[in-house]
Amino acid sequence: MAHSDLNDLTQRLREFAGARDWEQFHTPKNLAMALSVEVAELAEHFQWLTPDEASSLKNDPATVDALASEIADVAIYLLRLADVLDVDVAEAVRRKMASNEERFPSDLVRGRATLPEGRKADG
Amino acid sequence: MAHSDLNDLTQRLREFAGARDWEQFHTPKNLAMALSVEVAELAEHFQWLTPDEASSLKNDPATVDALASEIADVAIYLLRLADVLDVDVAEAVRRKMASNEERFPSDLVRGRATLPEGRKADG
Amino acid sequence: MAHSDLNDLTQRLREFAGARDWEQFHTPKNLAMALSVEVAELAEHFQWLTPDEASSLKNDPATVDALASEIADVAIYLLRLADVLDVDVAEAVRRKMASNEERFPSDLVRGRATLPEGRKADG
Amino acid sequence: MAHSDLNDLTQRLREFAGARDWEQFHTPKNLAMALSVEVAELAEHFQWLTPDEASSLKNDPATVDALASEIADVAIYLLRLADVLDVDVAEAVRRKMASNEERFPSDLVRGRATLPEGRKADG
Repeated sequence: MAHSDLNDLTQRLREFAGARDWEQFHTPKNLAMALSVEVAELAEHFQWLTPDEASSLKNDPATVDALASEIADVAIYLLRLADVLDVDVAEAVRRKMASNEERFPSDLVRGRATLPEGRKADG
Repeated sequence: MAHSDLNDLTQRLREFAGARDWEQFHTPKNLAMALSVEVAELAEHFQWLTPDEASSLKNDPATVDALASEIADVAIYLLRLADVLDVDVAEAVRRKMASNEERFPSDLVRGRATLPEGRKADG
Repeated sequence: MAHSDLNDLTQRLREFAGARDWEQFHTPKNLAMALSVEVAELAEHFQWLTPDEASSLKNDPATVDALASEIADVAIYLLRLADVLDVDVAEAVRRKMASNEERFPSDLVRGRATLPEGRKADG
Repeated sequence: MAHSDLNDLTQRLREFAGARDWEQFHTPKNLAMALSVEVAELAEHFQWLTPDEASSLKNDPATVDALASEIADVAIYLLRLADVLDVDVAEAVRRKMASNEERFPSDLVRGRATLPEGRKADG
Protein backbone atom coordinates (compact mmCIF):
# COMPACT_ATOMS: atom_id res chain seq x y z
CA MET A 1 0.00 0.00 0.00
CA ALA A 2 1.15 3.52 -0.78
CA HIS A 3 2.22 5.75 2.03
CA SER A 4 -0.54 7.95 3.45
CA ASP A 5 -0.14 11.13 5.47
CA LEU A 6 -3.71 10.82 6.62
CA ASN A 7 -3.16 7.33 8.02
CA ASP A 8 0.00 8.44 9.80
CA LEU A 9 -1.69 11.43 11.41
CA THR A 10 -4.76 9.41 12.35
CA GLN A 11 -2.57 6.83 14.03
CA ARG A 12 -0.59 9.43 15.96
CA LEU A 13 -3.79 11.14 17.13
CA ARG A 14 -5.22 7.84 18.28
CA GLU A 15 -2.11 7.14 20.33
CA PHE A 16 -2.17 10.65 21.80
CA ALA A 17 -5.77 10.18 22.96
CA GLY A 18 -5.09 6.65 24.21
CA ALA A 19 -2.08 7.68 26.29
CA ARG A 20 -4.26 10.25 28.07
CA ASP A 21 -7.31 8.02 28.46
CA TRP A 22 -9.23 10.55 26.42
CA GLU A 23 -11.23 8.06 24.35
CA GLN A 24 -14.03 8.59 26.89
CA PHE A 25 -14.28 12.24 25.78
CA HIS A 26 -13.79 11.51 22.10
CA THR A 27 -17.32 10.37 21.40
CA PRO A 28 -18.73 11.19 17.95
CA LYS A 29 -21.06 13.77 19.45
CA ASN A 30 -18.36 15.55 21.46
CA LEU A 31 -15.93 15.53 18.54
CA ALA A 32 -18.55 17.00 16.19
CA MET A 33 -19.15 19.75 18.74
CA ALA A 34 -15.42 20.39 19.23
CA LEU A 35 -15.03 20.52 15.46
CA SER A 36 -17.60 23.28 15.20
CA VAL A 37 -15.88 25.22 17.98
CA GLU A 38 -12.50 25.02 16.22
CA VAL A 39 -13.99 26.04 12.88
CA ALA A 40 -15.43 29.12 14.57
CA GLU A 41 -12.01 30.03 15.93
CA LEU A 42 -10.77 29.92 12.36
CA ALA A 43 -13.73 31.93 11.04
CA GLU A 44 -13.26 34.54 13.76
CA HIS A 45 -10.12 35.79 11.99
CA PHE A 46 -12.21 36.75 8.96
CA GLN A 47 -15.52 37.93 10.40
CA TRP A 48 -15.17 41.70 10.13
CA LEU A 49 -12.85 41.83 7.13
CA THR A 50 -13.72 42.75 3.58
CA PRO A 51 -12.95 39.98 1.06
CA ASP A 52 -9.76 41.82 0.06
CA GLU A 53 -8.60 42.25 3.63
CA ALA A 54 -9.34 38.58 4.34
CA SER A 55 -7.38 37.48 1.29
CA SER A 56 -4.38 39.64 2.15
CA LEU A 57 -3.99 37.97 5.58
CA LYS A 58 -1.87 35.42 3.76
CA ASN A 59 0.84 38.04 3.34
CA ASP A 60 1.38 38.38 7.08
CA PRO A 61 3.50 35.46 8.36
CA ALA A 62 2.36 35.79 12.00
CA THR A 63 -1.28 35.64 10.93
CA VAL A 64 -0.65 32.69 8.63
CA ASP A 65 0.97 30.89 11.57
CA ALA A 66 -2.12 31.57 13.68
CA LEU A 67 -4.40 30.39 10.87
CA ALA A 68 -2.29 27.28 10.34
CA SER A 69 -2.67 26.49 14.03
CA GLU A 70 -6.47 26.79 13.79
CA ILE A 71 -6.52 24.73 10.59
CA ALA A 72 -4.55 22.07 12.43
CA ASP A 73 -7.11 22.00 15.25
CA VAL A 74 -9.93 21.50 12.75
CA ALA A 75 -8.00 18.75 10.96
CA ILE A 76 -7.22 17.04 14.27
CA TYR A 77 -10.84 16.78 15.38
CA LEU A 78 -11.96 15.81 11.89
CA LEU A 79 -9.45 12.96 11.78
CA ARG A 80 -10.39 11.84 15.29
CA LEU A 81 -14.09 11.88 14.41
CA ALA A 82 -13.48 9.92 11.21
CA ASP A 83 -11.36 7.46 13.19
CA VAL A 84 -13.97 6.75 15.86
CA LEU A 85 -16.59 6.32 13.11
CA ASP A 86 -14.28 4.04 11.07
CA VAL A 87 -14.45 6.41 8.10
CA ASP A 88 -11.51 6.60 5.70
CA VAL A 89 -11.23 10.34 4.99
CA ALA A 90 -9.17 10.07 1.80
CA GLU A 91 -11.55 7.49 0.38
CA ALA A 92 -14.60 9.62 1.39
CA VAL A 93 -13.10 12.70 -0.29
CA ARG A 94 -12.35 10.77 -3.48
CA ARG A 95 -15.89 9.43 -3.60
CA LYS A 96 -17.38 12.87 -2.97
CA MET A 97 -15.18 14.42 -5.65
CA ALA A 98 -16.24 11.84 -8.20
CA SER A 99 -19.82 12.70 -7.35
CA ASN A 100 -19.19 16.46 -7.52
CA GLU A 101 -17.47 16.11 -10.89
CA GLU A 102 -20.64 14.51 -12.18
CA ARG A 103 -23.08 16.88 -10.48
CA PHE A 104 -21.30 20.06 -11.52
CA PRO A 105 -20.20 19.74 -15.15
CA SER A 106 -17.66 22.47 -15.95
CA ASP A 107 -19.60 23.71 -18.95
CA LEU A 108 -22.78 24.21 -16.91
CA VAL A 109 -21.40 25.87 -13.81
CA ARG A 110 -18.33 27.73 -15.05
CA GLY A 111 -18.15 31.00 -13.14
CA ARG A 112 -21.34 30.42 -11.16
CA ALA A 113 -21.55 29.05 -7.63
CA THR A 114 -24.77 27.09 -8.25
CA LEU A 115 -26.40 25.08 -10.98
CA PRO A 116 -28.53 27.05 -13.44
CA GLU A 117 -32.21 27.40 -12.51
CA GLY A 118 -34.12 24.27 -13.41
CA ARG A 119 -31.11 21.96 -13.07
CA LYS A 120 -31.27 20.33 -9.71
CA ALA A 121 -28.12 18.74 -8.40
CA ASP A 122 -29.20 15.32 -7.27
CA GLY A 123 -27.02 15.04 -4.22
CA MET B 1 9.72 13.81 -1.13
CA ALA B 2 7.49 11.03 0.10
CA HIS B 3 4.12 10.54 -1.50
CA SER B 4 1.35 12.44 0.28
CA ASP B 5 -2.34 11.76 -0.08
CA LEU B 6 -3.10 15.23 1.31
CA ASN B 7 -1.09 16.79 -1.50
CA ASP B 8 -2.88 14.64 -4.07
CA LEU B 9 -6.31 15.62 -2.79
CA THR B 10 -5.35 19.29 -2.56
CA GLN B 11 -4.13 19.21 -6.14
CA ARG B 12 -7.30 17.53 -7.41
CA LEU B 13 -9.49 20.04 -5.56
CA ARG B 14 -7.52 22.92 -7.00
CA GLU B 15 -8.04 21.59 -10.52
CA PHE B 16 -11.74 21.03 -9.87
CA ALA B 17 -12.15 24.68 -8.80
CA GLY B 18 -9.98 25.97 -11.63
CA ALA B 19 -11.92 24.08 -14.31
CA ARG B 20 -15.13 25.75 -13.09
CA ASP B 21 -13.63 29.23 -12.61
CA TRP B 22 -14.58 28.92 -8.93
CA GLU B 23 -11.41 30.52 -7.51
CA GLN B 24 -13.41 33.76 -7.36
CA PHE B 25 -15.76 32.14 -4.81
CA HIS B 26 -13.03 30.32 -2.94
CA THR B 27 -11.80 33.30 -0.94
CA PRO B 28 -10.51 32.57 2.59
CA LYS B 29 -13.57 34.23 4.11
CA ASN B 30 -16.08 32.31 1.99
CA LEU B 31 -14.29 29.01 2.54
CA ALA B 32 -14.22 29.54 6.31
CA MET B 33 -17.95 30.19 6.20
CA ALA B 34 -18.62 27.17 3.99
CA LEU B 35 -16.55 25.06 6.36
CA SER B 36 -18.73 26.06 9.30
CA VAL B 37 -21.85 25.21 7.31
CA GLU B 38 -20.55 21.74 6.44
CA VAL B 39 -19.50 21.06 10.02
CA ALA B 40 -23.02 21.90 11.12
CA GLU B 41 -24.45 19.39 8.64
CA LEU B 42 -22.25 16.80 10.29
CA ALA B 43 -23.22 17.91 13.81
CA GLU B 44 -26.90 17.81 12.90
CA HIS B 45 -26.79 14.01 12.84
CA PHE B 46 -25.88 13.98 16.54
CA GLN B 47 -27.78 16.90 18.02
CA TRP B 48 -30.69 15.15 19.72
CA LEU B 49 -28.98 11.84 20.46
CA THR B 50 -27.71 10.59 23.78
CA PRO B 51 -23.97 9.82 23.77
CA ASP B 52 -24.76 6.12 23.44
CA GLU B 53 -27.15 6.65 20.55
CA ALA B 54 -24.60 8.88 18.82
CA SER B 55 -21.87 6.30 19.24
CA SER B 56 -24.02 3.48 17.91
CA LEU B 57 -24.64 5.30 14.62
CA LYS B 58 -21.45 3.66 13.45
CA ASN B 59 -23.24 0.33 13.36
CA ASP B 60 -25.66 1.47 10.66
CA PRO B 61 -23.96 1.37 7.24
CA ALA B 62 -26.36 3.85 5.61
CA THR B 63 -25.76 6.38 8.36
CA VAL B 64 -22.00 5.86 8.20
CA ASP B 65 -22.19 6.54 4.46
CA ALA B 66 -24.05 9.78 5.13
CA LEU B 67 -21.55 10.77 7.82
CA ALA B 68 -18.64 9.93 5.52
CA SER B 69 -20.15 12.20 2.90
CA GLU B 70 -20.39 15.09 5.40
CA ILE B 71 -16.85 14.41 6.64
CA ALA B 72 -15.68 14.60 3.03
CA ASP B 73 -17.35 18.00 2.59
CA VAL B 74 -15.60 19.33 5.69
CA ALA B 75 -12.26 17.93 4.51
CA ILE B 76 -12.75 19.42 1.05
CA TYR B 77 -13.31 22.96 2.29
CA LEU B 78 -10.54 22.63 4.84
CA LEU B 79 -8.06 21.55 2.17
CA ARG B 80 -9.22 24.34 -0.16
CA LEU B 81 -8.88 26.93 2.59
CA ALA B 82 -5.39 25.69 3.50
CA ASP B 83 -4.47 25.74 -0.18
CA VAL B 84 -5.53 29.35 -0.79
CA LEU B 85 -3.68 30.37 2.38
CA ASP B 86 -0.55 28.37 1.38
CA VAL B 87 -0.78 26.31 4.57
CA ASP B 88 0.57 22.75 4.57
CA VAL B 89 -2.06 20.85 6.58
CA ALA B 90 0.07 17.81 7.42
CA GLU B 91 2.92 20.03 8.60
CA ALA B 92 0.50 22.21 10.64
CA VAL B 93 -0.99 19.14 12.32
CA ARG B 94 2.46 17.75 13.14
CA ARG B 95 3.48 21.05 14.68
CA LYS B 96 0.28 21.31 16.69
CA MET B 97 0.65 17.74 17.93
CA ALA B 98 4.21 18.37 19.08
CA SER B 99 2.90 21.38 20.98
CA ASN B 100 -0.04 19.43 22.44
CA GLU B 101 2.23 16.61 23.54
CA GLU B 102 4.18 19.17 25.56
CA ARG B 103 1.17 21.10 26.87
CA PHE B 104 -0.75 18.04 27.99
CA PRO B 105 1.65 15.61 29.67
CA SER B 106 -0.02 12.20 29.99
CA ASP B 107 0.63 11.95 33.70
CA LEU B 108 -1.07 15.31 34.39
CA VAL B 109 -4.17 15.00 32.25
CA ARG B 110 -4.86 11.26 32.19
CA GLY B 111 -8.62 10.82 32.26
CA ARG B 112 -9.39 14.55 32.51
CA ALA B 113 -10.34 16.79 29.62
CA THR B 114 -8.52 19.83 30.99
CA LEU B 115 -5.36 20.65 32.87
CA PRO B 116 -5.63 20.57 36.67
CA GLU B 117 -6.59 23.85 38.33
CA GLY B 118 -3.60 26.16 38.57
CA ARG B 119 -1.79 24.65 35.58
CA LYS B 120 -2.47 26.89 32.63
CA ALA B 121 -1.82 25.53 29.17
CA ASP B 122 0.22 28.18 27.46
CA GLY B 123 -1.22 27.90 23.99
CA MET C 1 -48.78 49.02 20.59
CA ALA C 2 -47.73 46.92 23.52
CA HIS C 3 -44.28 47.38 24.93
CA SER C 4 -41.61 45.15 23.41
CA ASP C 5 -38.28 44.19 24.93
CA LEU C 6 -37.07 43.10 21.54
CA ASN C 7 -37.80 46.47 19.96
CA ASP C 8 -36.06 48.28 22.81
CA LEU C 9 -32.95 46.14 22.57
CA THR C 10 -32.88 46.37 18.78
CA GLN C 11 -33.08 50.15 18.98
CA ARG C 12 -30.32 50.37 21.56
CA LEU C 13 -28.06 48.10 19.51
CA ARG C 14 -28.69 50.18 16.40
CA GLU C 15 -27.66 53.33 18.24
CA PHE C 16 -24.58 51.64 19.66
CA ALA C 17 -23.44 50.65 16.15
CA GLY C 18 -24.34 54.04 14.70
CA ALA C 19 -22.38 55.98 17.32
CA ARG C 20 -19.28 53.96 16.41
CA ASP C 21 -19.78 54.06 12.64
CA TRP C 22 -19.94 50.27 12.71
CA GLU C 23 -22.78 49.87 10.21
CA GLN C 24 -20.06 49.31 7.61
CA PHE C 25 -19.02 46.12 9.45
CA HIS C 26 -22.55 45.02 10.27
CA THR C 27 -23.37 43.59 6.86
CA PRO C 28 -25.66 40.55 6.79
CA LYS C 29 -22.78 38.31 5.82
CA ASN C 30 -20.45 39.54 8.57
CA LEU C 31 -23.19 39.37 11.19
CA ALA C 32 -24.10 35.81 10.21
CA MET C 33 -20.44 34.88 10.56
CA ALA C 34 -20.09 36.68 13.92
CA LEU C 35 -23.22 34.90 15.09
CA SER C 36 -21.71 31.51 14.36
CA VAL C 37 -18.54 32.49 16.21
CA GLU C 38 -20.50 33.53 19.31
CA VAL C 39 -22.60 30.37 19.26
CA ALA C 40 -19.39 28.35 19.23
CA GLU C 41 -18.14 30.21 22.31
CA LEU C 42 -21.34 29.15 24.01
CA ALA C 43 -21.06 25.55 22.79
CA GLU C 44 -17.46 25.37 23.95
CA HIS C 45 -18.63 25.28 27.57
CA PHE C 46 -20.43 22.01 26.92
CA GLN C 47 -18.24 20.19 24.44
CA TRP C 48 -16.49 17.63 26.67
CA LEU C 49 -19.21 17.28 29.30
CA THR C 50 -21.60 14.40 29.76
CA PRO C 51 -25.26 15.44 29.52
CA ASP C 52 -25.49 15.37 33.33
CA GLU C 53 -22.39 17.49 33.80
CA ALA C 54 -23.66 19.98 31.21
CA SER C 55 -27.03 20.22 32.91
CA SER C 56 -25.49 20.77 36.32
CA LEU C 57 -23.54 23.84 35.14
CA LYS C 58 -26.65 25.79 36.02
CA ASN C 59 -25.93 25.22 39.69
CA ASP C 60 -22.67 27.15 39.53
CA PRO C 61 -23.36 30.90 39.60
CA ALA C 62 -20.01 31.91 38.06
CA THR C 63 -20.58 29.55 35.14
CA VAL C 64 -24.15 30.75 34.67
CA ASP C 65 -22.81 34.31 34.51
CA ALA C 66 -20.33 33.27 31.84
CA LEU C 67 -23.06 31.45 29.89
CA ALA C 68 -25.40 34.45 30.22
CA SER C 69 -22.67 36.63 28.76
CA GLU C 70 -22.28 34.29 25.76
CA ILE C 71 -26.06 34.08 25.34
CA ALA C 72 -26.13 37.88 25.29
CA ASP C 73 -23.52 37.97 22.52
CA VAL C 74 -25.56 35.56 20.41
CA ALA C 75 -28.74 37.58 21.03
CA ILE C 76 -26.94 40.82 20.14
CA TYR C 77 -25.76 39.63 16.76
CA LEU C 78 -29.07 37.95 16.03
CA LEU C 79 -30.96 41.17 16.74
CA ARG C 80 -28.49 43.20 14.67
CA LEU C 81 -28.80 40.78 11.76
CA ALA C 82 -32.59 40.85 11.94
CA ASP C 83 -32.47 44.63 12.08
CA VAL C 84 -30.30 45.07 8.99
CA LEU C 85 -32.54 42.61 7.14
CA ASP C 86 -35.74 44.37 8.34
CA VAL C 87 -36.95 41.16 9.99
CA ASP C 88 -39.22 41.39 13.05
CA VAL C 89 -37.86 38.63 15.30
CA ALA C 90 -40.91 38.29 17.56
CA GLU C 91 -43.21 38.06 14.55
CA ALA C 92 -40.89 35.54 12.85
CA VAL C 93 -40.84 33.37 15.98
CA ARG C 94 -44.61 33.50 16.30
CA ARG C 95 -45.03 32.47 12.68
CA LYS C 96 -42.52 29.64 13.03
CA MET C 97 -44.19 28.40 16.21
CA ALA C 98 -47.58 28.34 14.54
CA SER C 99 -46.01 26.27 11.78
CA ASN C 100 -44.23 23.96 14.23
CA GLU C 101 -47.44 23.40 16.18
CA GLU C 102 -49.02 22.16 12.98
CA ARG C 103 -46.03 20.13 11.76
CA PHE C 104 -45.44 18.36 15.06
CA PRO C 105 -48.77 17.34 16.56
CA SER C 106 -48.29 16.41 20.22
CA ASP C 107 -49.93 13.02 19.83
CA LEU C 108 -47.60 12.03 16.99
CA VAL C 109 -44.26 13.19 18.35
CA ARG C 110 -44.68 12.91 22.11
CA GLY C 111 -41.36 11.74 23.51
CA ARG C 112 -39.65 11.46 20.11
CA ALA C 113 -37.37 14.04 18.55
CA THR C 114 -38.54 13.36 15.00
CA LEU C 115 -41.71 12.49 13.17
CA PRO C 116 -42.48 8.78 12.86
CA GLU C 117 -41.13 7.05 9.76
CA GLY C 118 -43.31 7.76 6.73
CA ARG C 119 -44.62 11.07 8.06
CA LYS C 120 -42.60 13.81 6.47
CA ALA C 121 -42.70 17.24 8.02
CA ASP C 122 -43.39 19.55 5.13
CA GLY C 123 -41.28 22.48 6.27
CA MET D 1 -43.54 44.10 35.93
CA ALA D 2 -43.70 45.53 32.46
CA HIS D 3 -44.90 43.33 29.69
CA SER D 4 -42.11 41.46 27.90
CA ASP D 5 -42.36 39.80 24.53
CA LEU D 6 -39.27 37.72 25.34
CA ASN D 7 -41.03 36.31 28.40
CA ASP D 8 -44.13 35.55 26.33
CA LEU D 9 -42.15 33.71 23.67
CA THR D 10 -40.13 31.83 26.28
CA GLN D 11 -43.32 30.72 27.99
CA ARG D 12 -44.90 29.56 24.73
CA LEU D 13 -41.78 27.61 23.77
CA ARG D 14 -41.70 25.96 27.17
CA GLU D 15 -45.28 24.83 26.77
CA PHE D 16 -44.62 23.58 23.26
CA ALA D 17 -41.74 21.42 24.51
CA GLY D 18 -43.70 20.27 27.56
CA ALA D 19 -46.73 19.17 25.53
CA ARG D 20 -44.45 16.96 23.43
CA ASP D 21 -42.37 15.62 26.31
CA TRP D 22 -39.33 17.16 24.64
CA GLU D 23 -37.66 18.46 27.80
CA GLN D 24 -35.61 15.25 27.71
CA PHE D 25 -34.04 16.39 24.41
CA HIS D 26 -33.75 20.02 25.42
CA THR D 27 -30.63 19.65 27.53
CA PRO D 28 -28.19 22.58 27.54
CA LYS D 29 -25.70 20.60 25.50
CA ASN D 30 -28.21 19.52 22.86
CA LEU D 31 -29.69 23.00 22.59
CA ALA D 32 -26.25 24.57 22.14
CA MET D 33 -25.59 22.07 19.37
CA ALA D 34 -28.96 22.70 17.72
CA LEU D 35 -28.31 26.42 17.95
CA SER D 36 -25.07 26.06 16.01
CA VAL D 37 -26.85 23.98 13.36
CA GLU D 38 -29.56 26.61 12.88
CA VAL D 39 -27.02 29.44 12.70
CA ALA D 40 -25.25 27.54 9.93
CA GLU D 41 -28.51 27.25 7.98
CA LEU D 42 -28.74 31.02 8.20
CA ALA D 43 -25.10 31.52 7.22
CA GLU D 44 -25.50 29.18 4.27
CA HIS D 45 -27.57 31.81 2.46
CA PHE D 46 -24.58 34.16 2.44
CA GLN D 47 -21.59 31.89 2.02
CA TRP D 48 -20.75 32.40 -1.66
CA LEU D 49 -22.06 35.95 -2.03
CA THR D 50 -20.07 39.15 -2.26
CA PRO D 51 -20.90 41.64 0.51
CA ASP D 52 -23.07 43.59 -1.96
CA GLU D 53 -24.94 40.52 -3.11
CA ALA D 54 -25.50 39.48 0.51
CA SER D 55 -26.83 42.91 1.43
CA SER D 56 -29.19 43.02 -1.52
CA LEU D 57 -30.92 39.79 -0.46
CA LYS D 58 -33.14 42.02 1.67
CA ASN D 59 -34.78 43.31 -1.51
CA ASP D 60 -36.15 39.90 -2.41
CA PRO D 61 -39.28 39.14 -0.35
CA ALA D 62 -39.08 35.36 -0.81
CA THR D 63 -35.50 35.33 0.41
CA VAL D 64 -36.31 37.59 3.36
CA ASP D 65 -39.09 35.14 4.30
CA ALA D 66 -36.60 32.29 4.20
CA LEU D 67 -34.09 34.27 6.26
CA ALA D 68 -36.79 35.25 8.77
CA SER D 69 -37.63 31.58 9.16
CA GLU D 70 -33.97 30.73 9.90
CA ILE D 71 -33.69 33.70 12.28
CA ALA D 72 -36.75 32.37 14.09
CA ASP D 73 -35.13 28.94 14.48
CA VAL D 74 -32.02 30.51 15.99
CA ALA D 75 -34.12 32.65 18.34
CA ILE D 76 -36.19 29.63 19.38
CA TYR D 77 -33.21 27.53 20.43
CA LEU D 78 -31.54 30.50 22.06
CA LEU D 79 -34.64 31.21 24.16
CA ARG D 80 -35.00 27.53 25.05
CA LEU D 81 -31.35 27.32 26.10
CA ALA D 82 -31.64 30.47 28.21
CA ASP D 83 -34.81 29.07 29.77
CA VAL D 84 -33.30 25.74 30.80
CA LEU D 85 -30.30 27.61 32.23
CA ASP D 86 -32.54 30.12 34.07
CA VAL D 87 -30.94 33.00 32.19
CA ASP D 88 -32.96 36.16 31.53
CA VAL D 89 -31.98 37.07 27.96
CA ALA D 90 -33.13 40.71 28.06
CA GLU D 91 -31.28 41.29 31.32
CA ALA D 92 -28.14 39.55 29.98
CA VAL D 93 -28.19 41.70 26.84
CA ARG D 94 -28.60 44.88 28.87
CA ARG D 95 -25.69 43.94 31.08
CA LYS D 96 -23.50 43.06 28.10
CA MET D 97 -24.38 46.32 26.37
CA ALA D 98 -23.49 48.36 29.43
CA SER D 99 -20.15 46.55 29.45
CA ASN D 100 -19.63 47.07 25.71
CA GLU D 101 -20.42 50.75 25.98
CA GLU D 102 -17.61 51.04 28.49
CA ARG D 103 -15.15 48.79 26.67
CA PHE D 104 -15.61 50.45 23.28
CA PRO D 105 -15.76 54.23 23.73
CA SER D 106 -17.10 55.84 20.55
CA ASP D 107 -14.18 58.20 20.22
CA LEU D 108 -11.64 55.37 20.35
CA VAL D 109 -13.26 52.86 18.02
CA ARG D 110 -15.22 55.00 15.58
CA GLY D 111 -14.95 53.37 12.18
CA ARG D 112 -12.70 50.53 13.34
CA ALA D 113 -13.82 47.03 14.26
CA THR D 114 -11.27 46.62 17.05
CA LEU D 115 -9.61 48.68 19.73
CA PRO D 116 -6.44 50.49 18.69
CA GLU D 117 -3.19 48.58 19.18
CA GLY D 118 -2.08 48.72 22.80
CA ARG D 119 -5.58 49.16 24.19
CA LYS D 120 -6.81 45.81 25.32
CA ALA D 121 -10.53 45.35 25.88
CA ASP D 122 -10.75 43.75 29.28
CA GLY D 123 -13.63 41.42 28.64
